[in-house]
Formats: sequence, C-alpha cells, structure tokens
Amino acid sequence: MTQSLRAWVEALGGELIGSPDLSIQGLAPIESAQEADLCFLSHPKYAAQLASTRAACVIVAPNMREAAAARPNAPALSATWVVDKPYLTFAQVTQLWRPRVRPDAAAGIHPSAVVDAQAVVDPSAMIGPLCVVERGARIGAGTQLHARVTVGQDCVIGARCIVHSGVVVGADGFGFAPRGDGSWEKIEQLGAVRIGDDVEIGANTCIDRGALSDTVIGEGVKLDNLVQIGHNVQVGAHTAMAGCAGVAGSAKIGARCQIGGGAVVLGHLELADDVVINASTTVMRSIKHPGQYTGVFPIDDNADWEKNAVTLRQLHKLRDRIRALELALQNTQGNTK
Amino acid sequence: MTQSLRAWVEALGGELIGSPDLSIQGLAPIESAQEADLCFLSHPKYAAQLASTRAACVIVAPNMREAAAARPNAPALSATWVVDKPYLTFAQVTQLWRPRVRPDAAAGIHPSAVVDAQAVVDPSAMIGPLCVVERGARIGAGTQLHARVTVGQDCVIGARCIVHSGVVVGADGFGFAPRGDGSWEKIEQLGAVRIGDDVEIGANTCIDRGALSDTVIGEGVKLDNLVQIGHNVQVGAHTAMAGCAGVAGSAKIGARCQIGGGAVVLGHLELADDVVINASTTVMRSIKHPGQYTGVFPIDDNADWEKNAVTLRQLHKLRDRIRALELALQNTQGNTK
Amino acid sequence: MTQSLRAWVEALGGELIGSPDLSIQGLAPIESAQEADLCFLSHPKYAAQLASTRAACVIVAPNMREAAAARPNAPALSATWVVDKPYLTFAQVTQLWRPRVRPDAAAGIHPSAVVDAQAVVDPSAMIGPLCVVERGARIGAGTQLHARVTVGQDCVIGARCIVHSGVVVGADGFGFAPRGDGSWEKIEQLGAVRIGDDVEIGANTCIDRGALSDTVIGEGVKLDNLVQIGHNVQVGAHTAMAGCAGVAGSAKIGARCQIGGGAVVLGHLELADDVVINASTTVMRSIKHPGQYTGVFPIDDNADWEKNAVTLRQLHKLRDRIRALELALQNTQGNTK
Repeated sequence: MTQSLRAWVEALGGELIGSPDLSIQGLAPIESAQEADLCFLSHPKYAAQLASTRAACVIVAPNMREAAAARPNAPALSATWVVDKPYLTFAQVTQLWRPRVRPDAAAGIHPSAVVDAQAVVDPSAMIGPLCVVERGARIGAGTQLHARVTVGQDCVIGARCIVHSGVVVGADGFGFAPRGDGSWEKIEQLGAVRIGDDVEIGANTCIDRGALSDTVIGEGVKLDNLVQIGHNVQVGAHTAMAGCAGVAGSAKIGARCQIGGGAVVLGHLELADDVVINASTTVMRSIKHPGQYTGVFPIDDNADWEKNAVTLRQLHKLRDRIRALELALQNTQGNTK
Repeated sequence: MTQSLRAWVEALGGELIGSPDLSIQGLAPIESAQEADLCFLSHPKYAAQLASTRAACVIVAPNMREAAAARPNAPALSATWVVDKPYLTFAQVTQLWRPRVRPDAAAGIHPSAVVDAQAVVDPSAMIGPLCVVERGARIGAGTQLHARVTVGQDCVIGARCIVHSGVVVGADGFGFAPRGDGSWEKIEQLGAVRIGDDVEIGANTCIDRGALSDTVIGEGVKLDNLVQIGHNVQVGAHTAMAGCAGVAGSAKIGARCQIGGGAVVLGHLELADDVVINASTTVMRSIKHPGQYTGVFPIDDNADWEKNAVTLRQLHKLRDRIRALELALQNTQGNTK
Repeated sequence: MTQSLRAWVEALGGELIGSPDLSIQGLAPIESAQEADLCFLSHPKYAAQLASTRAACVIVAPNMREAAAARPNAPALSATWVVDKPYLTFAQVTQLWRPRVRPDAAAGIHPSAVVDAQAVVDPSAMIGPLCVVERGARIGAGTQLHARVTVGQDCVIGARCIVHSGVVVGADGFGFAPRGDGSWEKIEQLGAVRIGDDVEIGANTCIDRGALSDTVIGEGVKLDNLVQIGHNVQVGAHTAMAGCAGVAGSAKIGARCQIGGGAVVLGHLELADDVVINASTTVMRSIKHPGQYTGVFPIDDNADWEKNAVTLRQLHKLRDRIRALELALQNTQGNTK
C-alpha cells in the first residue's frame, strides 16, 4: 500500500522539492521515520533531527527549506515538502491516509442501537452499535456516534461531530435543595444539551443537561476522555479540554481556551477567551484576562515534600516571624546608630 | 402549556399574595425570568434582584415578603409566594413541572436490557435500554436505571434510586497482593455493593464491590458524574459528592458530608458526620470533627506560580534561615544592650 | 458451605499447626473474623490482633508462628497456617474460594455482544453482554470482557486479561493541529492499542489508540477504575495505577511503578522503573530514579488554609525579605563589632 506524493501536494498545496512520484509507505515521527516514510518538522528547535532522519519526505516550513533539502541521511529517492504550517499539513495528510488503515464510517443506524422513534437522526450521520438516542434528540449531518454513546432526551448534536464510545450527553445535572434535616430534594433538570458543529467528545466523557436552560458546547470544541461538564455550563467555540478535566455547574468558559488534564473549574465562574489553564490546576475565581494560569503543588521526593508540607501549614506564622524580625532589626539599627 | 398557581400552592403550602389563577408558562432564574415565569429568591443577599425582575411570580422567604410584593417591574398580573424555604419549594415545583418537559419513566424492563433470570427487579422499577443486571442483583421499588447501566452480581439497589447512564455498580475492587517478584496476585473480590433508598448516582460513576464484606452506600446519598468509590467504602446517609471525586478502598465517610468536585479521600480513613471537603482537596488523614476543610494550591498566573513553586520546594530551608536570623538578632541585641 | 483446610494447604503449601480437617465457613479480616473464619496477619505491626481474634485459622509468617499458635481467643478447634507470604497466600485462597460466591465466567460470546466478523476472539475468552469488538481486534485466551466493554478496531488484548464494565480501548487519541485561526484540524489516530497478558482494567477506564504507532500496556499491568491513558503511552510490565489516575500522551512509564489515585503524568515524560507516585500528585518532569514522589497541598481547616494560601502567593517575596534581613543583619553586626 503506497502513495505517491503528487496527489497530496496537489490537494494540500505547498512546494515539493524532489520527485512527486516518490512512493510513501507510511507516516512516522521524524525521529523514527524509515526510508519510505513521510514525516514533518514541527518547530525549528528540532532542526537537528534533519541531520539524522532517514525519512523519504519531510514536511517543513519555508525557513527550514535548505536544511531539509540537504539532509545527509535521506535515501537516494527523497523529497522535501515546503508549506507554511507543517503540523497542519501533516494533520491533513493523516486524514488522507486514514482510509487505508480504517474504512470510513458508514452512515446509518446500527441495528443494535436503540433510537427513539421521535429522535431525528440525519441520514448522513452514523449511529454506532449499542448507542441510545432518546426521544426528541437530534443528530446532525455527518456526525458519528461511536459504540455505546447515550444522547438524552431533547439534546442536540450539530454537524460533523465525533462522539467516542461511552459518552453520556444529557444525564441530569447535579441539583438538590437542602430539606433542612440533612437530606436533599431533587431539582428536576428541565433543560437539555446543545452541542455545535465540528465538536469532538472523548470516551466516557459526560455533559449534563441544564437545570432550567440548556448546557451549551460551542462549535469546534474538543473534549478529551473522562471530562465532566456540569449543568448550565457554556463552553465557547474551539475551546479544548484535556482528559479528566471537570467544569462545575453554571461556569462560562470563553472561546479558544485550553484546559489542561485534570484541571477543575469551579461553579458559576467565568473564563475570558484565550485563557490557558495548565494541567491539574483548580480555577477558584473568574479569570478576566487571556494568559496562562497554574496552581499545582510541585512534585518532590517524598521526604522533602513532607518537610515542606509541614512548614507550609505554618506559612502565615513564618510571615509573622519575618515581620517581627524586620521590626526588631529596625529597632536594633536605631539603637546602634 | 400553562399552569395556574393554585394547584401548586395547595400542594406545597405557603401564602400566595396575588391571584391563584395567574398562569405560569415557565420556570427561570430570577435574573432572566420573563413576565410569565415563576422564579425564586434563594438568599436575602440577592434581594436587589427583586427590583429588576420581570417574573410573574417570585417564591420568597417571609423576611422578603414586602419587598417581593412591591417589586416595581412585575407585570400587571403578578403574585408573590411566601414559604419558609424558597429553594426547597422551587425544587418541589420543578418536580411538578417536569412531566410537561419529559414524560414519567415507564416501569418495566426495556427489551434491549440484559437482565439475568436470577436477578430480582421490582415491578415498579424501570430498567433502561442496554442495561445489564447480573445474577442475584436486586433492584428496588420505583428505582430507575437509565440507559447503559451495569449492576453486578448480588449487588442491591434500594427503592426510589436514580442511576444515570453508564454507571457501573459492582465491578471488582482493586485488590492485589505482591508476589515478591514485582508482579501481582489477584485478590478475588467476594463482597457486593449495597445501596440504600433514595440514592442518586451520576453518569459513568463506578462503585466497586467489597473484597470480603460489602461496599455500602447509605440512604439519600447523592453522587455526581465520574465519581469513583473503592471497595469496602462506607458512605453515610445523605452525603453528597460532586463530579470526579474519588474515595479509595475501605474509607468510611460519615453522614451528611459534602465532598467537592475532584476531591480525593485516601484509603482506610474515617470522616466524621457533617464534614465538608472543598473541591480538589486530598484528604490524607482521618477527620474527626465537623467543619470545612481545604487543601488546594492557589491558582496564579503562570510566571508567578513558577517563582513561588521554586521557593516552595525550599520552604523548610527558609524556615531554618528565619530561625537563624532570630538567634543572630538576639545575639546582636545582647551585644548592643 | 464449608471447606476443610487440607486441600488448601496441599495446593498452596506451608505448614499447618492444628487439624487439617477443620471446617472453614468464611474469609474475613482478622479484626472481625468469627470462629469459623480464616484470616491472615499481614504485618508484624498488627501482631496485637492475634491476642483478640476469634478466627478458626490465621495465616502467618514464620516469625509469628508461636504467637499465632498460642492465641488466647481461638475457638476449641483451631489452626495456624505458617507461610512465607501470608498476604499472597490469602490472595490465592480468595481465588479458591471465589467459585462458591460467583460461578466461573463461561467462555464464549454473549448473544447481545456486537463482535465484528473480522475480529478474532479466542474460544476460551469470554465476551460479556453488550460488548463491542470492532474489526481486526483480537482477544486472547482466557481473557474476560465484562459487560459493556468496547475494543476498537485493530486493538489487541492478551491472554488472561480481565476487563471490567464500561472500559473503552481504542478510542481516538486527543490530537489536533492548530489551524492558526483558533480552530483545530483533526490528526487522525492511525495506531492501535496493544495490551499484554494478565492485565486487569477497571470499570470505565479509557486507553486511547496511538497517533502513528501503538499505545502499549505491558504484561501484568493493573489499572483501577476511571483511569485515562493517552495516545502513544507506554506502560511497563506490572505497573499499577489507582483510580482516576491520568497519563497524558506519549508518556513512558517504567515497569513495576505504582501511580496513586488521581495522580497525573504529563505528556512526553519518562518514569524509570520502580517509581512510586503518591495519590493526587502531578508529575511535571521525567523521573530518572526509583523512589517515592509526592506533590499535594496538605489539607487544613478552611480558615487556616485561606491564610496560608494568601501567603503562599507571596512566597518569593518572603524569600526576598529574608535575604534582605540577612544582609541588613550582617551590616548591623559589622557596625556593632
């Protein structure tokens, strides 16, 4: 199974240095690419890899043009593909290559899926085996539900979405009023979930329905596996969240944000557009300005961590002792002057 | 689809100021309620919202009676509903309203569910599509298993529980004995899971079976999505846990506790009744007294975090330097006196 | 249902003090064992429990031989079973006992499972109800897929594995290239997942397929519930990860590591063999040496936490003040000498 470069360059653009008839047999990372493989150089800081790679073809940015074309370990037949955004072009190549590895998902509803008669599934959508699509739900054109996905009543998924196995869209939000005796009264969750176009949702991720209005996921949002989205949350377009991130109820996340793995956003907060939250960080206050934010205890060997952790619990006393020292020193200096 | 207030007030109690024949067309938060909506005022600190809300009816506590009845932007036909616990009454209203949005779950076993012949399902329970109920499991009266729930062998779920899609009750606990060569010998998990009445379990949450005895979830417990409950854990009545919380094996959580999102309780610990653990906090020691507990690194912009994190790893050295300064200063003061 | 000790001792070895015909009616922890129960003493530090236990038989190490044989509250008919590794022997006993509690899983494919015609399932494997096994997947001898497991295209699971309900093996890894306008281009995930022999995977855990090559889980690995394994990750043999742990893409975890509950390993890092990461710790740099590592904010009552957290954000300023004090004190001392 080989592929000439010609069709790819014609489809995706850029300049090819070398033969367009070169046969490509695989895609690989630059450091492990073999002599019939295509790879890419993502960043000039990895330029040294050009000296060692044996790849048949490397996708590079214009400023790497000469270095790439002259790479010493290239096979006799080789090529260099110059584009503005090598990583983006490589992503597009993976899409052209994918049908060789896995066939396109066939449109239609798998016979084992349970789709309510009052759900609306676009004929071009794919509903995988053992999915459940409840009454009033709507699945957009070209959207793929992989195996064992649940879409609850009245929830709407846009076009061209990819929903991975085990996802639950539209379970009840976590809403209870205290009865006053320690027990809880259920607040029925009367809203639904609305998911825009081109959204991808990772395996076993959960998106709860809203309490009174809808939970809303903007277009182009990417959620990794095991992410939790609480009721009434709004996620702006093209925001990406890594695995095990959690967003509590009624939080409003801006567009183009990046939320790291295991990060937690508390309820009712707002994050501006273009906010980056690093992994394992808990967002405890609204963030009004774009930027990168972190809050995670640095890892250490356990013995050192224990010493620091004990001291940390007395940190405000240390501060008081420093203040006392400053005052005492001023007095002492006054006395000695 | 409208609703006169009369039936609600008769069912739920309290005093209605205004016409009981007022038609309600929706439920809404007070800040966005329109002129045919019912809303509630949860707390006196939000009293300013009474001045702006356009809602047809507001549920308020007795101390807000006059302010609510005189709200300036109310429509011509309006009412004020005075009750002791507005949030609780509103929760009850959502339950009365819900059948207009979603029909009651029908009792019975969906034909696509796989229910073992030796499982016992109460005739009033609902087993949703593609659920699996294994041998010896028991499902109580009025309990609802939403789509794609697994209830393992011999596990017992009480009455009036709500179990959301993707939940796994009764997978094996995580128990292995070291063989001594680095590999692990499985400890068979011989217990089951016992869940009390009126428990709600969020989507994709997991509750493991006990190793020798049972894992026990008390009555009225509320678990959010993606919560992990390890083997042998005991959770006291009416305790609530938010999304992504995890309780390790053999921990014993008291009654009426609240465990925040992403919090972790380590194994074999005990938490007293009425303990509140804030989000993202790791409980590393037993907690004997009611109260609110926290342990989370404060979020900061990344550059400041980096500076503080570096210093944090030397915190016990800072403490030593402060001590040295204190001693040196005493000596200096001694010298100058 | 009783069991004489004779068969167990013959099967598992060790020395029995007392009658091999003693009847055992249950397995229990030493502190709650009743007079027909078998229990074990895991560690000499719990030796005091020998004085109080009423168990019929206790499994002990050789150094506890006399104390165990002379335990005062043993029933008239009792025994002591001396082995090198009591916890390991007890684990093996649970395996001999288990068929009394739960029947062996029957080999074969449950009729409700959806297994692609081009998947290869060993005849001795068990595929539980409502599982999905996609095209090209392979399931090894004696492996058990519990209810509602997904094994994606071309993914391979070795022999004697146990995969719990809700697991998703082979969803797409989280890979997207920025288009430059804030939106994301999907990188097709062309690899698969390869899982070795004797692996156990907990409920609702997710293991993503690799981007270009495979995600690899070594033999004997044990993953608890709700664990996330990103694309291209390699996990060495016999490593164990507790619930809610997450490993980001392309990380390489050594053999015989232990990753605590809720811990996070960031992408592209390497962990040496025999590394222990404590619960809730985020691994932000590669770890080259075996040992125990921690990074978690210590829990405190909320009021104290707030005081310390405020100070923590100014920690590097405290360090600067200490440095200033040290210099000032040197000057003062210089002045007074």
